[in-house]
Amino acid sequence: MTTMLPRPDLESDARVKAVFDDIRATRNTDFINNMWRWLAFDPALLERTWTEVKAVIGKPSSIDPLTKEMIYIAVSVANNCTYCVHSHTAAARAKGLTGEQYGELLAIIGLAGKTNQLATAMQIPVDPAFDASQQG
Amino acid sequence: MTTMLPRPDLESDARVKAVFDDIRATRNTDFINNMWRWLAFDPALLERTWTEVKAVIGKPSSIDPLTKEMIYIAVSVANNCTYCVHSHTAAARAKGLTGEQYGELLAIIGLAGKTNQLATAMQIPVDPAFDASQQG
Amino acid sequence: MTTMLPRPDLESDARVKAVFDDIRATRNTDFINNMWRWLAFDPALLERTWTEVKAVIGKPSSIDPLTKEMIYIAVSVANNCTYCVHSHTAAARAKGLTGEQYGELLAIIGLAGKTNQLATAMQIPVDPAFDASQQG
Amino acid sequence: MTTMLPRPDLESDARVKAVFDDIRATRNTDFINNMWRWLAFDPALLERTWTEVKAVIGKPSSIDPLTKEMIYIAVSVANNCTYCVHSHTAAARAKGLTGEQYGELLAIIGLAGKTNQLATAMQIPVDPAFDASQQG
Amino acid sequence: MTTMLPRPDLESDARVKAVFDDIRATRNTDFINNMWRWLAFDPALLERTWTEVKAVIGKPSSIDPLTKEMIYIAVSVANNCTYCVHSHTAAARAKGLTGEQYGELLAIIGLAGKTNQLATAMQIPVDPAFDASQQG
Amino acid sequence: MTTMLPRPDLESDARVKAVFDDIRATRNTDFINNMWRWLAFDPALLERTWTEVKAVIGKPSSIDPLTKEMIYIAVSVANNCTYCVHSHTAAARAKGLTGEQYGELLAIIGLAGKTNQLATAMQIPVDPAFDASQQG
Repeated sequence: MTTMLPRPDLESDARVKAVFDDIRATRNTDFINNMWRWLAFDPALLERTWTEVKAVIGKPSSIDPLTKEMIYIAVSVANNCTYCVHSHTAAARAKGLTGEQYGELLAIIGLAGKTNQLATAMQIPVDPAFDASQQG
Repeated sequence: MTTMLPRPDLESDARVKAVFDDIRATRNTDFINNMWRWLAFDPALLERTWTEVKAVIGKPSSIDPLTKEMIYIAVSVANNCTYCVHSHTAAARAKGLTGEQYGELLAIIGLAGKTNQLATAMQIPVDPAFDASQQG
Repeated sequence: MTTMLPRPDLESDARVKAVFDDIRATRNTDFINNMWRWLAFDPALLERTWTEVKAVIGKPSSIDPLTKEMIYIAVSVANNCTYCVHSHTAAARAKGLTGEQYGELLAIIGLAGKTNQLATAMQIPVDPAFDASQQG
Repeated sequence: MTTMLPRPDLESDARVKAVFDDIRATRNTDFINNMWRWLAFDPALLERTWTEVKAVIGKPSSIDPLTKEMIYIAVSVANNCTYCVHSHTAAARAKGLTGEQYGELLAIIGLAGKTNQLATAMQIPVDPAFDASQQG
Repeated sequence: MTTMLPRPDLESDARVKAVFDDIRATRNTDFINNMWRWLAFDPALLERTWTEVKAVIGKPSSIDPLTKEMIYIAVSVANNCTYCVHSHTAAARAKGLTGEQYGELLAIIGLAGKTNQLATAMQIPVDPAFDASQQG
Repeated sequence: MTTMLPRPDLESDARVKAVFDDIRATRNTDFINNMWRWLAFDPALLERTWTEVKAVIGKPSSIDPLTKEMIYIAVSVANNCTYCVHSHTAAARAKGLTGEQYGELLAIIGLAGKTNQLATAMQIPVDPAFDASQQG
């Protein structure tokens, strides 16, 4: 089920075609996943989102590609985004996530989910040692 | 503000003292942060939580210590746990998080927050290519 | 999948029938969507919920009907309620939501999702200028 | 910090005074907690909310008063409502919550937070045995 | 859809078999629900999670078994875990949840969802009377 | 409390100064709120975020400025972002939000919070009439 359906002829829009061409070239595949096909109904939103994904995820940087995907999975699980959990778990596997790492990733996400609730339930005061505004 | 206050003499309970001693020995510091002091009112809960933290976060494994903290921050931000965001950002810094990495971590968390909402808003169907149950 | 099934003869209960009759009369349609059919197992809960929906959404007021639906969609996306995202997107379309407005609505929801995470991640202090208790 | 301040003379509004009088009579105390003082700027919203609280929480029913407060705490923790965690933990204590029960409540909330994340992360399919629509 | 599939021969792993045997013995049934079958890919995570579930949910304690399930449902709804809502609603029914109690449980969860949002929207200050650190 | 502090001389960085100058010119005020001062530690993240805010919120479009702020508040409340609730409630007031509209906005957000939980708790199936993929 979905709240909208993409038009069949998405790439008849020149702005959409330009983004899709760039996705294909950047990823070296003909596969355009549904995220981009659904966003295409609003070409400005599509362009901005793809540009940001390329800037944040697509470039060599101080965080390695697999770690980026693990962080993306962690946020998507906590925000409960079904689509994103699926797409980024697939992406992490494509970038080399092993079964052992997947088990550890789940263990960290699960433990964080638990301690998040415990700290919120008791409204534990933040230790002054953790507060940047108290540091010299 | 908090929903409860730890007793002043926490370590008069032998089970609490044993956990605190292990925290001090494991971390090589006298500092016991508030999470453990608040959990101490229920020694069984304290023991189980510390044992799990040691198993998941405290051991050399297939995910490196800094990456573990970045994943923990990501979940804590998405779950909106003030205490945990503070404590794990401090821990990440202690494990070497640079300003450049922090900026990238924020960029990934922010982008994930955005695309999570977009995918949920449109209820985008999961591509069959991402579904493990459709794979050979 | 669902956790419960409505009885086949819901309207044999007089309280349920009265609410359903009012829904049909208010909306000028015979269609009773599943929200009301599922709530009907507890007539008091059904009555309270429908009365509140009529008071909050169903009356002319200082916020126009389409804006109300956009706000409802925004909350439902952030809370990740699949049923509510579907039902209120359909309602917004019935009240005239255009494709252009839908694109903008998604852009705002997505941007808010991103800046919400950024502000939480850095635990940005609220500017005194925004705090009502500091104002003259 | 707050986004608004109640007027000093809240009870000069007859509808507000009537609700506050009913709160005092129902609870047998002069203390009106901030939730009601803040809602008073919109008397219709105040009336509807108090009426619902009385119907759901304030009447003898098939769930005992302390259990109701534990459920309220559980939702408030998962939704991360600071005000509500504080007010309902205080209410649970007033209704007899023991330290032992508080520890167990936290343990359940924490465990649920963890298994919620694990099930979402793996997108575990619901067992047909749990689906009401599959049952005879 | 799921992000992973359990291997067909899960119990060929001795650690998995030991946990599954204990689940069958503890629950007095041959039925192993999907949560455990999915976790089995990481035997350490499976063992830790089952041990915690037994300690928190499976033992006689100061909170009765049905109340534990109602609290578990409440957290799972607020965290939006489809799998967990289904499995714990089924468990609550197996432990005697009546239709009347289910209606009340929903009413409390719904009301808490509403007042959580109201308190957060107005950023209502916590009454000093609720703050443990202000108490004598 | 905060996880980081902005450097005192933020505008000595030319990219930061250019964004801050544009914020001042666009908003016709010298006031730079903390969101921008905190993001400034990573000039690329600052630039991307401000550019997106200008494109989504700052331009005349098919959704009027006050409605945009109400949608922003709705998402921020549901995501529980203290900073964002404060800053966008202040922005909505600056754009003319009346007390009557604020009361209605809260009523919609609260009602949505409630029905979101009810629909999730019962896992209500989406009516085929709401599903775009079923439409002709």
